[in-house]
Amino acid sequence: MSVGEALTGQVFSIEGVRLAAASASIKKQGRKDTVLLELSEGTTTAGVFTRNAFCAAPVVICRDHLSRENPRYFIINSGNANAAVGIKGVDDALEVCSYVGATVGVGVSQVLPFSTGVIGERLPVHKITSVCEQLHDGLNSEGWKSAAEGIMTTDTRPKVASIEVEVNNSPVKITGMCKGSGMIRPDMATLLVFLATDAVISKDLLNQLLRGAVNQSFNRISVDSDTSTNDSCVLSATGKSGVVVNEGSESYRQFSTALNSLCLKLAQEIVRDGEGATKFVEVQVEGGLDSRECLLIAYSIADSPLVKTAIFASDANWGRIIMAIGKAGVVDLDVELVDVFLGSVCLVRAGQKDAGYREELGAAEMAKEEILIRVSLARGSASESVWTCDLSHDYVTINAEYRT
Amino acid sequence: MSVGEALTGQVFSIEGVRLAAASASIKKQGRKDTVLLELSEGTTTAGVFTRNAFCAAPVVICRDHLSRENPRYFIINSGNANAAVGIKGVDDALEVCSYVGATVGVGVSQVLPFSTGVIGERLPVHKITSVCEQLHDGLNSEGWKSAAEGIMTTDTRPKVASIEVEVNNSPVKITGMCKGSGMIRPDMATLLVFLATDAVISKDLLNQLLRGAVNQSFNRISVDSDTSTNDSCVLSATGKSGVVVNEGSESYRQFSTALNSLCLKLAQEIVRDGEGATKFVEVQVEGGLDSRECLLIAYSIADSPLVKTAIFASDANWGRIIMAIGKAGVVDLDVELVDVFLGSVCLVRAGQKDAGYREELGAAEMAKEEILIRVSLARGSASESVWTCDLSHDYVTINAEYRT
Repeated sequence: MSVGEALTGQVFSIEGVRLAAASASIKKQGRKDTVLLELSEGTTTAGVFTRNAFCAAPVVICRDHLSRENPRYFIINSGNANAAVGIKGVDDALEVCSYVGATVGVGVSQVLPFSTGVIGERLPVHKITSVCEQLHDGLNSEGWKSAAEGIMTTDTRPKVASIEVEVNNSPVKITGMCKGSGMIRPDMATLLVFLATDAVISKDLLNQLLRGAVNQSFNRISVDSDTSTNDSCVLSATGKSGVVVNEGSESYRQFSTALNSLCLKLAQEIVRDGEGATKFVEVQVEGGLDSRECLLIAYSIADSPLVKTAIFASDANWGRIIMAIGKAGVVDLDVELVDVFLGSVCLVRAGQKDAGYREELGAAEMAKEEILIRVSLARGSASESVWTCDLSHDYVTINAEYRT
Repeated sequence: MSVGEALTGQVFSIEGVRLAAASASIKKQGRKDTVLLELSEGTTTAGVFTRNAFCAAPVVICRDHLSRENPRYFIINSGNANAAVGIKGVDDALEVCSYVGATVGVGVSQVLPFSTGVIGERLPVHKITSVCEQLHDGLNSEGWKSAAEGIMTTDTRPKVASIEVEVNNSPVKITGMCKGSGMIRPDMATLLVFLATDAVISKDLLNQLLRGAVNQSFNRISVDSDTSTNDSCVLSATGKSGVVVNEGSESYRQFSTALNSLCLKLAQEIVRDGEGATKFVEVQVEGGLDSRECLLIAYSIADSPLVKTAIFASDANWGRIIMAIGKAGVVDLDVELVDVFLGSVCLVRAGQKDAGYREELGAAEMAKEEILIRVSLARGSASESVWTCDLSHDYVTINAEYRT
């Protein structure tokens, strides 16, 4: 299941970036599951990664390689996460990087590995290396969509989008692809996301831009409250447009606005394609003392199984929403100031059912495929939004049958 | 669905306690939904209540009445939670208490009200008061099981149990009943639980005993991570046995051991009858630095939708267990010290799949109706257990159809 139309806008190729996808039959025979991404010399790259203590071997290597030099190649596989296999996982990923480096003619630390899929099984190194030549030969600048298909797991559709923005009166392009459908509650990082731009951006500035964008997009979504071991998000700047983005300048503002917008679009697309999703839900909390308490309440609602099953049933069960607000642990919350809206319909005014509320009004809002839950705390000026989906029978089916 | 046999042991009546149940047709015509419980004069009562900020009107009144005098009557209804209806909810509950007080001949503050059911609808006061006479006439000391039926909501079976213990060489009885099946992740309190003993116990000591017992039982279970607005747990001591429990004495140790054991049995019965439950799961975390971090990891596993759906599918997907350990937010966790067991089978040794593990071994454990997940952190001497159930299709069905 998925909610709304798939992303359909034009996908821009990024000068200096070439991609190819192939099938190494990692989990399913003949399924496209391996991607090679090439960055031209001089490209800068920034990355953010999962905070899960059991982070996967490729995450360990990405952090290490990124701290040393600018990568020239990404080797990405789906079907196997290369997580929780101990030091052998690191050996396996390095063997793949080494093979890729030899094939394309760069050092091992200029290759970043990314994996997603089943946890706890050894990476099938030889399956991946056996398609390296094929991937290398297939590299082309139009390969984004095909690559987006190659990194899918339980995703039902590829996720790729582009944006063009005027920076200092010159056009700059950003294109990104991502995957992710379950085990989605990124924590200070995200799932697998690959972003590239042709702007000229220093590595420090790129890190700063990426962290800012991720924090307002991939770090604001939850499908099932579970944080993956493999979350990784990287942004590469090839510089091929010759347009320079400088800190503290108008160019920074222009670029970051575009980047944030693209990341939000991709993050929301992950929720729309959340496992079993039939509804796309935005939870807005406003009037909080600070961002932290707004997020506590927003996630308490977004992650509540009772709220999510009510949304699946199109039931405007606002009692469950106020239960979730109340359990969030916000200190000294005055419930008699709390209002709750579903779209434009006021459900709760001053902590109790709004006098004008009728079930038909809530039912009409709930019948929609896109739902907005808005909570006003009336105790400060902070606000936050998170995005989630409902909890359906299909979520249970997909995750009860994942390994079979 | 429910897991294992219902509680079948002998239910002891408690001298000084009488009960009756009736149908006030609150949610369903003719369904038993209202209970009156009488305590003899001189009975002491202690209570603990939900920490949900949107606590229900009856919780507000219970706290107030308990701070003033010892209650003589409990009036309990299912089908309506009397929560999130503003000051009118307090008025409604007080009207019921007042009517009960007049019927039985005590002051309004000697009556405690308890409600459970749908949130956000006005309490049908007159339906409840219309059965007060009938309840009063029906009071009898054998009424525990019938009363346990009267407080059920989505519960599939009544939950009542007793224990007898020698205190200073004299027999003392404790009997308790509870309800609860969904919206179960009690926080410093619990669902609806009524416990009574014929021991002589001062109110202060009773509070201390109750908090200790609840903390190790009802505060260690989770069905769906959602904390109810109505959680209430009370313990009454009628003193009719003449056996005195004193602080710091052998009698205290004897009584508290029995009370803790009874509370644990009732709490586990709530999980066994959790909404849609097909498996009963204990999560043990040992070797932590302190209780707090053991609980963080235990609940991270117990509340993970991905772990719970894997258990529903009888899939020993240990990758999801280590994901849940890793996301729990325990600082400086050394994953290379972590072991994970399923029953007696070692799944993970030193952070990766155990060399001797085979899928058949895990599958055999997972096929059982009662599952033990044991995690060893090897960094301290603290340990904790929590109890939960799986996440099945029936959970989604029950909660998608709750108000229809």
